[in-house]
Amino acid sequence: MHTQQGLFAGLFGRGGVEAGDEAWLQAMLDAEAALARALERAGLAADGAGAAVTAAADASRFDPADLGRQAALTGNPVPPLARALTAAVPSWAAGAVHRGATSQDILDTAAMLVAKRASHAILADLADAAAAAAGLAAAHRDTIMIGRTLLQQAVPVTFGLAAAGWLPGIDEARQALARVAAERLAVQFGGAAGTLAALGDAGPGVAGLLAAELGLAVPVLPWHTDRLRVLELAAALAAAAAALGKIARDVTLLAQSEVAEAREGGAGRGGSSAMPHKRNPVASVLVLGCTRRVPGLLATLAAAAEQEHQRAAGAWHAEWEPLSDLLRLTGSAASWAAELLAGLDVDARRMRANLDSAGGFPMAEPVAALLGPALGHLAAHDLIAAASAAAAAAGQSLGDALKSGAAASALAAAGVTPGQVDAALDPAGYLGSARAFTDAALAAHRELALPAAGRPPG
Amino acid sequence: MHTQQGLFAGLFGRGGVEAGDEAWLQAMLDAEAALARALERAGLAADGAGAAVTAAADASRFDPADLGRQAALTGNPVPPLARALTAAVPSWAAGAVHRGATSQDILDTAAMLVAKRASHAILADLADAAAAAAGLAAAHRDTIMIGRTLLQQAVPVTFGLAAAGWLPGIDEARQALARVAAERLAVQFGGAAGTLAALGDAGPGVAGLLAAELGLAVPVLPWHTDRLRVLELAAALAAAAAALGKIARDVTLLAQSEVAEAREGGAGRGGSSAMPHKRNPVASVLVLGCTRRVPGLLATLAAAAEQEHQRAAGAWHAEWEPLSDLLRLTGSAASWAAELLAGLDVDARRMRANLDSAGGFPMAEPVAALLGPALGHLAAHDLIAAASAAAAAAGQSLGDALKSGAAASALAAAGVTPGQVDAALDPAGYLGSARAFTDAALAAHRELALPAAGRPPG
Amino acid sequence: MHTQQGLFAGLFGRGGVEAGDEAWLQAMLDAEAALARALERAGLAADGAGAAVTAAADASRFDPADLGRQAALTGNPVPPLARALTAAVPSWAAGAVHRGATSQDILDTAAMLVAKRASHAILADLADAAAAAAGLAAAHRDTIMIGRTLLQQAVPVTFGLAAAGWLPGIDEARQALARVAAERLAVQFGGAAGTLAALGDAGPGVAGLLAAELGLAVPVLPWHTDRLRVLELAAALAAAAAALGKIARDVTLLAQSEVAEAREGGAGRGGSSAMPHKRNPVASVLVLGCTRRVPGLLATLAAAAEQEHQRAAGAWHAEWEPLSDLLRLTGSAASWAAELLAGLDVDARRMRANLDSAGGFPMAEPVAALLGPALGHLAAHDLIAAASAAAAAAGQSLGDALKSGAAASALAAAGVTPGQVDAALDPAGYLGSARAFTDAALAAHRELALPAAGRPPG
Amino acid sequence: MHTQQGLFAGLFGRGGVEAGDEAWLQAMLDAEAALARALERAGLAADGAGAAVTAAADASRFDPADLGRQAALTGNPVPPLARALTAAVPSWAAGAVHRGATSQDILDTAAMLVAKRASHAILADLADAAAAAAGLAAAHRDTIMIGRTLLQQAVPVTFGLAAAGWLPGIDEARQALARVAAERLAVQFGGAAGTLAALGDAGPGVAGLLAAELGLAVPVLPWHTDRLRVLELAAALAAAAAALGKIARDVTLLAQSEVAEAREGGAGRGGSSAMPHKRNPVASVLVLGCTRRVPGLLATLAAAAEQEHQRAAGAWHAEWEPLSDLLRLTGSAASWAAELLAGLDVDARRMRANLDSAGGFPMAEPVAALLGPALGHLAAHDLIAAASAAAAAAGQSLGDALKSGAAASALAAAGVTPGQVDAALDPAGYLGSARAFTDAALAAHRELALPAAGRPPG
Repeated sequence: MHTQQGLFAGLFGRGGVEAGDEAWLQAMLDAEAALARALERAGLAADGAGAAVTAAADASRFDPADLGRQAALTGNPVPPLARALTAAVPSWAAGAVHRGATSQDILDTAAMLVAKRASHAILADLADAAAAAAGLAAAHRDTIMIGRTLLQQAVPVTFGLAAAGWLPGIDEARQALARVAAERLAVQFGGAAGTLAALGDAGPGVAGLLAAELGLAVPVLPWHTDRLRVLELAAALAAAAAALGKIARDVTLLAQSEVAEAREGGAGRGGSSAMPHKRNPVASVLVLGCTRRVPGLLATLAAAAEQEHQRAAGAWHAEWEPLSDLLRLTGSAASWAAELLAGLDVDARRMRANLDSAGGFPMAEPVAALLGPALGHLAAHDLIAAASAAAAAAGQSLGDALKSGAAASALAAAGVTPGQVDAALDPAGYLGSARAFTDAALAAHRELALPAAGRPPG
Repeated sequence: MHTQQGLFAGLFGRGGVEAGDEAWLQAMLDAEAALARALERAGLAADGAGAAVTAAADASRFDPADLGRQAALTGNPVPPLARALTAAVPSWAAGAVHRGATSQDILDTAAMLVAKRASHAILADLADAAAAAAGLAAAHRDTIMIGRTLLQQAVPVTFGLAAAGWLPGIDEARQALARVAAERLAVQFGGAAGTLAALGDAGPGVAGLLAAELGLAVPVLPWHTDRLRVLELAAALAAAAAALGKIARDVTLLAQSEVAEAREGGAGRGGSSAMPHKRNPVASVLVLGCTRRVPGLLATLAAAAEQEHQRAAGAWHAEWEPLSDLLRLTGSAASWAAELLAGLDVDARRMRANLDSAGGFPMAEPVAALLGPALGHLAAHDLIAAASAAAAAAGQSLGDALKSGAAASALAAAGVTPGQVDAALDPAGYLGSARAFTDAALAAHRELALPAAGRPPG
Repeated sequence: MHTQQGLFAGLFGRGGVEAGDEAWLQAMLDAEAALARALERAGLAADGAGAAVTAAADASRFDPADLGRQAALTGNPVPPLARALTAAVPSWAAGAVHRGATSQDILDTAAMLVAKRASHAILADLADAAAAAAGLAAAHRDTIMIGRTLLQQAVPVTFGLAAAGWLPGIDEARQALARVAAERLAVQFGGAAGTLAALGDAGPGVAGLLAAELGLAVPVLPWHTDRLRVLELAAALAAAAAALGKIARDVTLLAQSEVAEAREGGAGRGGSSAMPHKRNPVASVLVLGCTRRVPGLLATLAAAAEQEHQRAAGAWHAEWEPLSDLLRLTGSAASWAAELLAGLDVDARRMRANLDSAGGFPMAEPVAALLGPALGHLAAHDLIAAASAAAAAAGQSLGDALKSGAAASALAAAGVTPGQVDAALDPAGYLGSARAFTDAALAAHRELALPAAGRPPG
Repeated sequence: MHTQQGLFAGLFGRGGVEAGDEAWLQAMLDAEAALARALERAGLAADGAGAAVTAAADASRFDPADLGRQAALTGNPVPPLARALTAAVPSWAAGAVHRGATSQDILDTAAMLVAKRASHAILADLADAAAAAAGLAAAHRDTIMIGRTLLQQAVPVTFGLAAAGWLPGIDEARQALARVAAERLAVQFGGAAGTLAALGDAGPGVAGLLAAELGLAVPVLPWHTDRLRVLELAAALAAAAAALGKIARDVTLLAQSEVAEAREGGAGRGGSSAMPHKRNPVASVLVLGCTRRVPGLLATLAAAAEQEHQRAAGAWHAEWEPLSDLLRLTGSAASWAAELLAGLDVDARRMRANLDSAGGFPMAEPVAALLGPALGHLAAHDLIAAASAAAAAAGQSLGDALKSGAAASALAAAGVTPGQVDAALDPAGYLGSARAFTDAALAAHRELALPAAGRPPG
């Protein structure tokens, strides 16, 4: 699987997620050790067997490459691992190793542990990202900028509103991931075909103890071929990635040389000694480099959820690496995004300049509203639209266009004062509920209550 | 968009989901009408304007093909629809049409209405499917069959357990979809760039009234480019599809001529007058024909969630048809599955016969357990494994193999009686917690509490 | 399936592709009619039977909705269609209907016909798009603009080179699609399990005649569960979509209000009477609205290629609508793109202005090269980099920065004249092989030789 | 990136593909070294500089983890690598390092080298797989088995035909991949924005020499944001995966305990000491474990092909790992499949037994044909269909049913002899063109002419 240290690890494996060989190996050993302790607590293993197996279950004592080679004989690495672990414990405790379990029990439980630990790391970075976005929203509550739709300048907004618009996505993703981590990451324990036959009727009891040992949920029955837990986890990760990708895309666009309303901080990053005019938005680019891969991984896991009979031939195997990739990439994106948002340089003056360069046309609607009472809504709109079009064609601003011609006459006839016109042309007066929405988003962020995600002992 | 009546509609558009042109058109009109009523309630439209617009907002009075042609001028069908609707209301009420709204407000709100109505239909079919699966689990609580892993016969299970294993997937998907329908399908109302500037500071109030009119949730702020709601809806639908696809795959496998443990009911369906030995599992095949398309649609919607600035150039447009397809296909799969499960013919005798044909080898483990006290676990296991291998090679059953040779001697030496051996060879004695798990799944199903999904007025 | 006329048809069903119910129905009838003619030519049907079946095989005489309802009994619409067609021919010719064929033979052959006809339409629009891109490349061979990397201004390019860079993608996609249309769209004819047993040993002969009748290729053997032809078709369509999506994305970015180097033509489209500063790039947006859906459809078809045994249970059924969607969306994107490119307004003056606004920093490298002989490459680079950074920080241009300070001294000491400095600062002198690459791309475009795509009789 | 040695490497990284850190690092160094040699040949670098850089360009002298850490500053690992390489060459040769190149030139060229080397390994395994499939087709040309459609027994085929049906997919994929490897894997060399401005007008010449040094194709112009080459490579790999996945699925189904017509060889693999009746089809399962991930990766690369302007912000970065994964997984699937097919145990007797157990019903059609001349096709069909249905309901075979009742009377009246009936009931007489198709597929396989894939020097 993917190593966290390597040529591309600094880009796509940033942050605290551990989903490489070492993490998987330790998680499988943690599952085996917890099973031994659960068996002992259930009276099905010798006193002390749990502790003995736990002591031996240390990843540094096993060789992933060797296990990997042997895995080709059985199709997964658990059988050679169980053998090696058995050999590593005192013989009186050997009976507690892997008892009642099938390979999938250990591997699925390990996947849930890897996911749970990774979720904690991702949630921490998402929390930082949300806090930083909230900070931007609060700080720029009154920073006016032009809103852009279909990549065209439209009407004024505030940067506070834009940043506030990033918040619900991050917070909803946090909520979804925390819920999955707390409720849906469950122990797998069913034995060869989901009956736990080797344990007589003690199976459910052991499953409950195993879950308690690992801080995982107890499923109603083994979920060997019911993969909705994996799919829900993937969907929660994809939600986080979607929220972060949107932010990163916005930043790359705001950071364009011609827009220049924001640029990334990050001392020493993205610069070019030869081209001081260029500052590559490295963090945003790498968020996108991670998040753009998430839909394909999500689809792979969704397709792999069609698993036949009691245990599947291939679809299950197709899950392992994509799930690891999804955790790693979402984690990396969250880490980059947290840093990006915390260090974002916002240029309020440039925002204002870009808005002013729009020639007042974004304010055509409030200007028309001045004439509404006198002319009726439709006629007022048509008159100002005609004035706007003529002004734009002539390279004039809307303000200039209102000083002469039909528009000026109509305004005068309607008793509209120059001051009223100036007020209507002021973007600050045409922000509608921008501040109210910003405040509401900040309040919702403050009140966000996450389900406790539990805490694996490891 | 997709017509529900057509060459393939009976296959991929079965059930109650309406997500074609008519449904979209009416939903857009419902959104416009509700906005007019909300404006009136907020004092922003003439008395009676809401009712007047509502009276005009009848899809049968508008021509989808004509609107579609005009849509090419603006990139979406709302502007021509708003114009046509305005023309259809008395002039005194015209000011209440589309006031404060942008095209995306109407189209997104319509999408949520389409989704909400479709969700009700899907939830109803999922409820039927779950009830039928529960019925099978209860009826076959004691029907023994061979469990299959990696498509190989493994150890005994019950068909009740297999059917019980289908339940959590369906019920979890119901829960997820009901939650999304109740909480996450929200009204969209932000105006040109999300500030509702045209309404001064009345925007949030109107948004709340609009949501109340339509039975949709109120978002914290407009979600024009925060698409997590769409992604969560898609993920809930994909969860349902995943659960149904697994069941359908199992049924096609159980219905194989050589397995023949189950076959579809459905009078007159799947038969071949020329080949009476053949009974095509049409419902299962069509469930799969629907569900196999879901991962790609899910990925498309996840990728489309990266939407720039205040309103997106392309990614938003890429959502409409895939969302419709996803609703239609999940609905069709649910409808087929409900019928499939309700009519499934289970052949308990064939299940037993297939199990018996396994020559007793699935019971090697309980037989070895008889020798454990005398020989130790490992030696016992090795001895029975050797006897099994020899028997299999010789075409004998395990029972035969235990009547002579080393195994017989060891059993005798250990004081194991023939009756004990017979008992160990009886699959009925090696079902572990199959019944307990079945009962637990049935109990969880009975106790399932779905969030009320609300009810749109339309 | 999708109707070409409807609420969204003007957006996502533009152009000449016919892949709706009518097209499918007629293609299935064409396949049946061609089979009857082939049987007659092979001496396996009565004289005149081919013509009689062909006369009856007119889609307007059959009701898609009724066939769709009956299709639910067998899982596909061919059996009811074959029945209805049989009833519509004289009884003496009835034996020529569907003889030797299985449903999949007719449906797959129809899919190939639909694809072939659609490919012709798509190829025509792609040819127009390529011609328009070539026209832009030639017209703007000397139009200097700033090149942009990671959305940052970098070094000068020409718009001719940018447009020339669009050409290979379109032309490669044309080549791939024409090759698939000519070589890979093959008749399907294998009977119930691919042996054509009902025809004795006459099967391959009839298959060859059938292919000749339809202008399709003859496969080595029936390809019921070898779906590489479908996947290759999908990949060729995806290549076209990728090439078009890249162009559309570039145009949306060039059309941004702050960049304004290009804008869409299209009289009356994308405009807003109220906001004359806004001109939505509708065609580009809709290209993206189509192309963003292609990867998901491609993945669905790739996953569906795993088809078991002689004919598949579900994976085959999952192909039909996605293939239709892929043809329709690629065709729509090609149609929009051809129009977009033919009408693109390029603003060479704005391009120059944007480049000039970069303060000369993009030319730091050629300036440093002036000092290379005297100072060595590295020292020269460092000196100019320092001057650039200082100038940028001070809000100066690079040209200003070279007039005083260390840089000026070094230039003077090296005997570099002000004229040489001015020349080095001229972007026109730093275009490298832009024109050579443009010319090479235009030459390759002119020399493009497409495989003749053949021509279906229908 | 992915290490070839590790916990899951034996499963998903089998075979000769090298696409991990080491392979990427060496390929980047190979690209830099070839550039130095090309510059020297073009007279743009000191004599001997090419050899000096080549000598230094040895991956074992660089630390991937350290490069990975530094990569986070610039967004890709090339800048730190170019710096480290420069430091590793004599100062007189340093000017030949990376001259004229941008990071993407080196990384894309390296990707093409990695892909070319991997393609050789994949093509070798595919050739072995095809040869083994051809061997099975030839050996089992006359091995009769029941054909299965929608997972139901249908009419007789031969296993030779089934294996022959696997051949075109593999061979078509070989052809596609060899073509891409030979023609489409091209050098990337464009400099900062695709003009090669730093080389004056020498750029195209150096690009040609660079391509010659590396055995890669020369593009018409730099393809920084034209990603069709990557997409075509991905599509060719996906075609291979699709062909292999189909085979693996067939084998898992044929190997089912209840079918048992084939089972995997592979000494010591898939067995279970405790359950001798169980032989897991490990190779097939792992083929599927690899191939099921390919559609998602293909979609990711297709979506990433939308790359803006001169070099993209994020989409390019999203390609690197998925391309590596796709090469690795396709290679692993090919390696597993080659071994699987070479060692497949086919049980011809069990095939015959399964066919015979179908009770003769698959031969209803040839029996009806005996009555056609006397009764007419339709009446004959109806009569035998009725007899078949009655027999099936009564648990009789078709042969039994023809000995009495209406069918017997009709046969006698038509003068059909018992010998003729027996012949019609013999599956061997109802194989149609099975052998002809098998022979045709084998001939096409023998005549397959692959484009020479070229050979990179490394």
